[in-house]
Amino acid sequence: MPYYHAHELGGFFKPESIAVIGVSRESASIGGNSFLQRHLDAGYPGRLYPINPKASEILGLRAYPSLASLPEAPDLVMIAVRADLVPAALEECARKGVRYVHVLTSGFSEMGTPEGRELEKRIAAVAGEHNLLVMGPNCMGPYCPAGRLTAWGAIPGRDGHLGVISQSGGITQRFTEYVSSLGIGISKAASIGNAAVLDSPDFLEFMAGDEDTRLIAFYLENIRDGQRLFDLAREVSPRKPIIMLKGGESEKGAATVESHTGRMAGNRKMWKAFFAQTGVVSVSSVNEWVDACLAFSCLPKSNGNGLFIMGGGGGNSVIASDACARAGLDVPTLSSESMEKLRRFVPAAGSIAGNPLDDWELFLNPQLLLETLDIAYADARISMVIVDRLIPRIAFHGPEFPDAVEEIADFIKTHKNRKPTVFTIDYDGGDPDLTRKGALLRSRFCEEGVPAFPSFERAIGALACFQKYCNRFTGL
Amino acid sequence: MPYYHAHELGGFFKPESIAVIGVSRESASIGGNSFLQRHLDAGYPGRLYPINPKASEILGLRAYPSLASLPEAPDLVMIAVRADLVPAALEECARKGVRYVHVLTSGFSEMGTPEGRELEKRIAAVAGEHNLLVMGPNCMGPYCPAGRLTAWGAIPGRDGHLGVISQSGGITQRFTEYVSSLGIGISKAASIGNAAVLDSPDFLEFMAGDEDTRLIAFYLENIRDGQRLFDLAREVSPRKPIIMLKGGESEKGAATVESHTGRMAGNRKMWKAFFAQTGVVSVSSVNEWVDACLAFSCLPKSNGNGLFIMGGGGGNSVIASDACARAGLDVPTLSSESMEKLRRFVPAAGSIAGNPLDDWELFLNPQLLLETLDIAYADARISMVIVDRLIPRIAFHGPEFPDAVEEIADFIKTHKNRKPTVFTIDYDGGDPDLTRKGALLRSRFCEEGVPAFPSFERAIGALACFQKYCNRFTGL
Repeated sequence: MPYYHAHELGGFFKPESIAVIGVSRESASIGGNSFLQRHLDAGYPGRLYPINPKASEILGLRAYPSLASLPEAPDLVMIAVRADLVPAALEECARKGVRYVHVLTSGFSEMGTPEGRELEKRIAAVAGEHNLLVMGPNCMGPYCPAGRLTAWGAIPGRDGHLGVISQSGGITQRFTEYVSSLGIGISKAASIGNAAVLDSPDFLEFMAGDEDTRLIAFYLENIRDGQRLFDLAREVSPRKPIIMLKGGESEKGAATVESHTGRMAGNRKMWKAFFAQTGVVSVSSVNEWVDACLAFSCLPKSNGNGLFIMGGGGGNSVIASDACARAGLDVPTLSSESMEKLRRFVPAAGSIAGNPLDDWELFLNPQLLLETLDIAYADARISMVIVDRLIPRIAFHGPEFPDAVEEIADFIKTHKNRKPTVFTIDYDGGDPDLTRKGALLRSRFCEEGVPAFPSFERAIGALACFQKYCNRFTGL
Repeated sequence: MPYYHAHELGGFFKPESIAVIGVSRESASIGGNSFLQRHLDAGYPGRLYPINPKASEILGLRAYPSLASLPEAPDLVMIAVRADLVPAALEECARKGVRYVHVLTSGFSEMGTPEGRELEKRIAAVAGEHNLLVMGPNCMGPYCPAGRLTAWGAIPGRDGHLGVISQSGGITQRFTEYVSSLGIGISKAASIGNAAVLDSPDFLEFMAGDEDTRLIAFYLENIRDGQRLFDLAREVSPRKPIIMLKGGESEKGAATVESHTGRMAGNRKMWKAFFAQTGVVSVSSVNEWVDACLAFSCLPKSNGNGLFIMGGGGGNSVIASDACARAGLDVPTLSSESMEKLRRFVPAAGSIAGNPLDDWELFLNPQLLLETLDIAYADARISMVIVDRLIPRIAFHGPEFPDAVEEIADFIKTHKNRKPTVFTIDYDGGDPDLTRKGALLRSRFCEEGVPAFPSFERAIGALACFQKYCNRFTGL
């Protein structure tokens, strides 16, 4: 039986005081010093205590020789000392009455050595003996913009409803910054590394009960208690989508997991069954992960499979149809009422009225785009819409397209028959001007709550995940 | 028997005079006027003749009432009049002694009407009767930077060794600009639309014999003489890689092809066999197409399957391994000599010496990156290298990475044991500063002849195509 309840893990995310054991007198840009510096940069409002036996001041903060000499028991302690010194540091935490500890230090079971494994067992033993709640080792620890705890990730942090659980510090840092830049805020993120004490199911259970978290992004490499994860995931999935990037699905990937977090990754078949039986959404790259989070964060539920494609160019329409077929998305013929309405304004030559709709005029005339969305929202065969928003490359013969992001987003979000609607904006390549324009347009749609993707294929990937989830849990 | 030889098609690409039938007196941004304007903008050095029965001057150029009234038979005529007037315009070309004609106009078999099909047959009949070489209808026509013929695509055009054959004007325009922005120049591009007269095998045969063309990018929707394409593709593939985006592989996509270029797309099974038997490289999106062209344009031949991954971050290494396994690429254990050399500088904790190599220091110290490449080039188990070049997101704890693109590219290109080496640069998201930096870094590597991709998955996709081709045609 564990010595804690999952809801207690909330204590990691809103500490009023933090001590860092393992800060050097010279200002280094890594380890404990960098965390302190980031807390200072981000305007962390609580009390910060650098611990160093030989310094009186570090980064302008009063330093203390030991945890024991602090005027209080800090709400959170971060340990960044050498691996072999970590067990003693944990003992020191226990003596001071500290409960929440983040162990940044690496050099444990991920080393693949008997010494590393032994040292990690010591951490678990000391924690169990003293009822310590330990995140790590070998990880970036807790992150919470609402708690002003943002020593990594987007700085300043963006508050929101996405919870993150991850066994990779590097991926988590990148992910939290990436989603934040696209308008998705984080409720709590836990980078848990080797998970010697608290494992991912503990954080999943915590986030399942956390009111601020509505959606959970999960990077998992390995798990101690697979049955517990399975039971929790099946229970949580219908009410809070869990989007999981499972690392180590291949033989080579699994071998790499052992040298990363020191445990076995499990086999591919098992995980396939896990996804099928729990409804956890499976993605296989960081981009897919972010794309799915965008879709799940912003879109209303979908009530069917029919996708309407609004784009420009015959060739584009052909490869878009192919991409949908590969992803298992249906591109139905429109109703005769819809076709009749479309034919009123879609030119007969050089364009194609239908699904896909090939009509450049949509992008030159935002009013036409809104009318077309209206037609799609009224058509019972259509459940989702993708707008392949062309932007003017130099190569295209055409004027600048009018920019009506706010108007379009407002129309979509307030429409009485709103259906999941996403945009794609194609700006890849080496042209700096196109890149700047495209990335800006993309983030503006996202900031308005309308998911926009940098390629049609990525949009389709996200919609396919979203559609599958909606189909499974409709009515729940 | 056709009335022309493939080598004659070269005449489309370096015309010394061009007449445009179908330019309006008001300056419109579409149709014939836009072509004329683009030729003027791009500094086309030849003679330009606008044809309009009622104007004396258009866009500052002397206008002529008819083709007959011109002082010469132009090398190339572009027809942009209404569909039903095209046959008469072709007759006019024949009377003037014109041989090369590009029909921009749409409204033929792609309309799906008997009238449209009939009109297209008329074009073929008139062309055959008068030995006219006709590109189109419903297309953007010829493009050739060396011939200063760049009314679309990158402006100014970038000359190079990539030939392009395409049935979609929109895709071709986007593609030529896209690859040019990444340092890949075009020898000749042919946007052939409905291909009523000259079909893609004609241009394939021409490019096979064209000295300036070393690699062929092909967007195909449908084909009249499949056997001829098959025979040609099988003959050309070993000496000039053909990278094909086949539109209409799905049922829905094939139906869309009919409304785009008016012909049947053929079935998926047949095309699968086509790729397997000819060695033509198959891609399924514009991004994949560009990625493969980058790899094939820049890389020396690969002599095996082993890929070495240089990156940073344990989680990254895990998902990279998984991505390689999915793409069928081998990530072998390094030789003991290589491991010994790596262990001299890779830290034991926080990094992982091996394959994948997880070592952030590589990016802080370019000398270390070059030493590591040297180790990989000396290791017989390694045939290709991918460098997952991290760039500093705000989230990462780390200083700015030094920028040594030229030094690195030079090292790779001049190394005596050079192996195919690519970079990935991850800059996706909504942060304008990251986007700018990342896109710039990417294009700088590409300009130096070192392929750089915006994600690990895309790099792997391109390498997998390239590897497969090299394996098949090794020694040829």
